[in-house]
Amino acid sequence: MVPVISFVGSANSGKTTCLEEIIPLLRQRGYRVGVVKHHGYDFAIDHPGKDTWRFAQAGAEAVALASPQKLAVVRLLPVELPLAEIVKGMGAIDLLLAEGYKQGKQDKIEVVRSGRKPVMPAETLLAMVADEVHYESVPTFPFGELHKLVDFLECRFCLEPRRAEAGQHA
Amino acid sequence: MVPVISFVGSANSGKTTCLEEIIPLLRQRGYRVGVVKHHGYDFAIDHPGKDTWRFAQAGAEAVALASPQKLAVVRLLPVELPLAEIVKGMGAIDLLLAEGYKQGKQDKIEVVRSGRKPVMPAETLLAMVADEVHYESVPTFPFGELHKLVDFLECRFCLEPRRAEAGQHA
Repeated sequence: MVPVISFVGSANSGKTTCLEEIIPLLRQRGYRVGVVKHHGYDFAIDHPGKDTWRFAQAGAEAVALASPQKLAVVRLLPVELPLAEIVKGMGAIDLLLAEGYKQGKQDKIEVVRSGRKPVMPAETLLAMVADEVHYESVPTFPFGELHKLVDFLECRFCLEPRRAEAGQHA
Repeated sequence: MVPVISFVGSANSGKTTCLEEIIPLLRQRGYRVGVVKHHGYDFAIDHPGKDTWRFAQAGAEAVALASPQKLAVVRLLPVELPLAEIVKGMGAIDLLLAEGYKQGKQDKIEVVRSGRKPVMPAETLLAMVADEVHYESVPTFPFGELHKLVDFLECRFCLEPRRAEAGQHA
């Protein structure tokens, strides 16, 4: 079971920046990280006119572009997929970080920008990223000390550092 | 087992256009079609500056963008994936059409533009799309009669038309 942790918080709380800083910290320790961003409505990731775009326009349910180094798949969904299903299609990863999934049973970390209040109740949170302590009961990590959050996640999910292999991912 | 059929041929033989015409024909008959395009080298599908692009730049092994209607996943691969693996990540489809996979054991259809010669030996081909017959032993369908190729695929792979459901995909 790949651990799934979602970073939640109000708009512009700093979730994306947090993830952007945590990913390389995990990677330096040898972990393969998957990231899912939640989007509230339809989106276009493909470029109009490209062959993959043409196949989608022609009515394909799922379109992939595959090279020896990379695989991109865009699928239409009859119903929204839970994170537990999404993780299955992400290949060999050691943990999955999500942005914007307030629902679901996965562990959640709220990101709270200075001067704001949390939007989630304390009992729903595994941890917080904030420069002040909002809930005494929730481990809180300042924005400038995200390596301590990574220590906490390693411990909490019993992640096994694979430093010997880390070079493969450099 | 989802049938996998690859459309092969020399550059500019008309493979993409063929697929673009076959997809809606299959869809009209109620089939959910997946398409894989093979790319010889690295590609960028994401837009620089977008959050998903930032996560990939930060070192994520796999990045997904998920909405209630659509799921896009981009994965780095340690080794190229065979079609049999790719199909597993494409959700619920009735058949997978590939463009540009000359290797592998999947059935192959060569597309040959007028005035050119086939690049594949007859014994490796399930069928051809061409305006002239190059191999007596290989069923050949003209560019203007691709509905007959679709009839042939339905029969060859014992596809079950799901016309009653087709409305769901319209």
